Amino acid sequence: MALIVHKYGGTSMGSTERIRNVARRVAKWHKAGHQMVVVPSAMSGETNRLLALAKELQPAQLGKAYGRELDMLAATGEQASSALLAIALQAEGIDAVSYAGWQVAIKTNDAYTKARIESIDDARVRADLAAGKVVIVTGFQGVDPDGNITTLGRGGSDTSAVAVAAAMKAAECLIYTDVDGVYTTDPRVVPEAKRLERVSFEEMLEMASMGSKVLQIRSVEFAGKYKVPLRVLSSFTPWDIDLNEEASSGTLITFEEDEDMERAVVSGIAFNRDEAKVSVLGVPDKPGIAYQILGAVAAANVEVDVIIQNLSKDGKTDFSFTVHRNDFQKTLDLLKGQVLPALGAADVVGDNRICKVSIVGIGMRSHVGVASRMFKCLSDDGINIQMISTSEIKTSVVIDEKYMELAVRALHREFDLDQTADTISK
Amino acid sequence: MALIVHKYGGTSMGSTERIRNVARRVAKWHKAGHQMVVVPSAMSGETNRLLALAKELQPAQLGKAYGRELDMLAATGEQASSALLAIALQAEGIDAVSYAGWQVAIKTNDAYTKARIESIDDARVRADLAAGKVVIVTGFQGVDPDGNITTLGRGGSDTSAVAVAAAMKAAECLIYTDVDGVYTTDPRVVPEAKRLERVSFEEMLEMASMGSKVLQIRSVEFAGKYKVPLRVLSSFTPWDIDLNEEASSGTLITFEEDEDMERAVVSGIAFNRDEAKVSVLGVPDKPGIAYQILGAVAAANVEVDVIIQNLSKDGKTDFSFTVHRNDFQKTLDLLKGQVLPALGAADVVGDNRICKVSIVGIGMRSHVGVASRMFKCLSDDGINIQMISTSEIKTSVVIDEKYMELAVRALHREFDLDQTADTISK
Repeated sequence: MALIVHKYGGTSMGSTERIRNVARRVAKWHKAGHQMVVVPSAMSGETNRLLALAKELQPAQLGKAYGRELDMLAATGEQASSALLAIALQAEGIDAVSYAGWQVAIKTNDAYTKARIESIDDARVRADLAAGKVVIVTGFQGVDPDGNITTLGRGGSDTSAVAVAAAMKAAECLIYTDVDGVYTTDPRVVPEAKRLERVSFEEMLEMASMGSKVLQIRSVEFAGKYKVPLRVLSSFTPWDIDLNEEASSGTLITFEEDEDMERAVVSGIAFNRDEAKVSVLGVPDKPGIAYQILGAVAAANVEVDVIIQNLSKDGKTDFSFTVHRNDFQKTLDLLKGQVLPALGAADVVGDNRICKVSIVGIGMRSHVGVASRMFKCLSDDGINIQMISTSEIKTSVVIDEKYMELAVRALHREFDLDQTADTISK
Repeated sequence: MALIVHKYGGTSMGSTERIRNVARRVAKWHKAGHQMVVVPSAMSGETNRLLALAKELQPAQLGKAYGRELDMLAATGEQASSALLAIALQAEGIDAVSYAGWQVAIKTNDAYTKARIESIDDARVRADLAAGKVVIVTGFQGVDPDGNITTLGRGGSDTSAVAVAAAMKAAECLIYTDVDGVYTTDPRVVPEAKRLERVSFEEMLEMASMGSKVLQIRSVEFAGKYKVPLRVLSSFTPWDIDLNEEASSGTLITFEEDEDMERAVVSGIAFNRDEAKVSVLGVPDKPGIAYQILGAVAAANVEVDVIIQNLSKDGKTDFSFTVHRNDFQKTLDLLKGQVLPALGAADVVGDNRICKVSIVGIGMRSHVGVASRMFKCLSDDGINIQMISTSEIKTSVVIDEKYMELAVRALHREFDLDQTADTISK
């Protein structure tokens, strides 16, 4: 008898028949005595349909006023699916009510199309739960301080669900999706990849940010920050499977560390070919250059991932970083137009045919030599490393994108993930 | 240089190409120096698509909780079209912003699916207009005192537009639609019907309520109550026609009475086959029976139109009224189940194959014998009158629906509307 948050993706909400199945699954949990909050995505295809209409009409200059209208438009998808789910629950005999982001309210900043949640008022939801209702809260959206509708960016419904779970102090947030959990790597690349029954929040954070597209990264950040136990599980199981079986399926992303459990050194291999590399060459090496370059990039709302500054030579240095591939041209233009003249740098070059491959594992903390084992493995297959970035539980390399599958498979084998996946991190 | 409200129906908003044309038309008015507020309907077909999804999922009992979710769902259509229109205006170089009903706010009661507007805060819209923006306000929707989304019922966008025009004290509210004005009757029934250049608010009210489907009746009530000059005109003219030509096209619904103008006795023939007749027979004739019968009907949210109580005979009377055909069975069930036993009436009978035909005209006030001329005309064609209802400027009869076209054509001829339409009410 706990407060549980369910989140259903667009595929799960893709038709009235599927929405009915979601309603039946939620009803099963409700009838078992749980207080249920449900966060649905828009019906699959709906957000794309709406954004395609906007694209046909869009102005030449895409400013903030345009972003505001885009959010006004895109937010309708989740509002509609939430109302439909409430109706389907009512048909199951459950008292259900749906709320748009502004009604809860889920308050965000005003960074349209990629807003960040700042607070959630839980009073209304709590009162409804106390009255025995199932509460449906639209995913993906919120409201800014001036009462404008905002959206949280692609995959934002995951973040909504976790934020709601955090605000409500839910016992667990279950993310129903079209995969049955988190794998050691993408099974489409490595057929031997295995599902992890548990993964730590830190590992998941690194895997999500690396492109394991199971969860939006911000949702994992939220889960970690507010210690929300998060479970990724399949929405394709029959709605009437045993509740206990369902509740222990998928992958649990946990913030509890079992100190005494045996850990694999590396839990998973993540990869990402959505990035592009940009280098500013011949930068005069003096204090403040990193800020001068990246400040301008951040001001243009471009997120930067890996950052490398090479050793200085003759008072000049090279400065490289990666951005999302969609921001590649914009970043090049910005650097050439504004930053290069101001810095007195020699040139700006870029490459959008790269990929990033990472090994992730909490076990790396207590094992030395893991990174060099990674580099040797890649070297053995003749793969040249262009950039390296490390953290306590992750080592990433940027390589030519044509070697991506080869690198991922080699590393999966190297770190003994091929056969042991079922038992690691347990 | 005035404050003008434009309202565009679903057909005008039916595709991105059409939305672009609406944007260009609005931009033309804006560039001519007018302050513009635009109220669009949902893209044609969208509301029906959403309601069909709800219908597939709906519970057996359709209570208030269901109505709330239906409004949550249906309101998304106008929110999306409003955002798209704002985007299209931005593409025309116009600073434009869209607001959902709750953002303005358009406050309504909580009668879901047929809510009534109670107030409009115009501060936000006024500030935007002062800043040179075109403001788009979603039609069809509002927000109730508890912050739930409501909708105003079919055609509610007309009402939204007039209510916004009233709140803003607009110089004129232009309703762009797929007809080019108000006709003496439906041209599909009487090819000789002619467009009226002006019609009084009172006449329009009677014609709208009688089923001249040009405008939602409540929008006309609002226009009359707040003295908003209302113009119905075609959205099919090219967007770039001369503004002055456009501004004087269609039909002006005016609250100004030209005392000295020559008026036709009858301005138009309205008809309606959406009604059904219900009779309670053998009701003991004592005070309070009308309330006992109609109070129960009103409590079930069924609107009653014509009401007739026959002369008493042997202490018993018959009581008849008409309701919307959709409410026919519900009303019969209600009367048989609750009212009949309580009243001690003999029986309840009904007929849903009736129609109502009305003659409407301000000129009737000062002309005697208009009603009897109507009855004689129908009698000459062998049409039996089942019910009669009169007001100062209207006389309605309920007849067998199979005679509807015959009756309308005969009356149109009888009251000299066939050829004179272009000149009456001028």
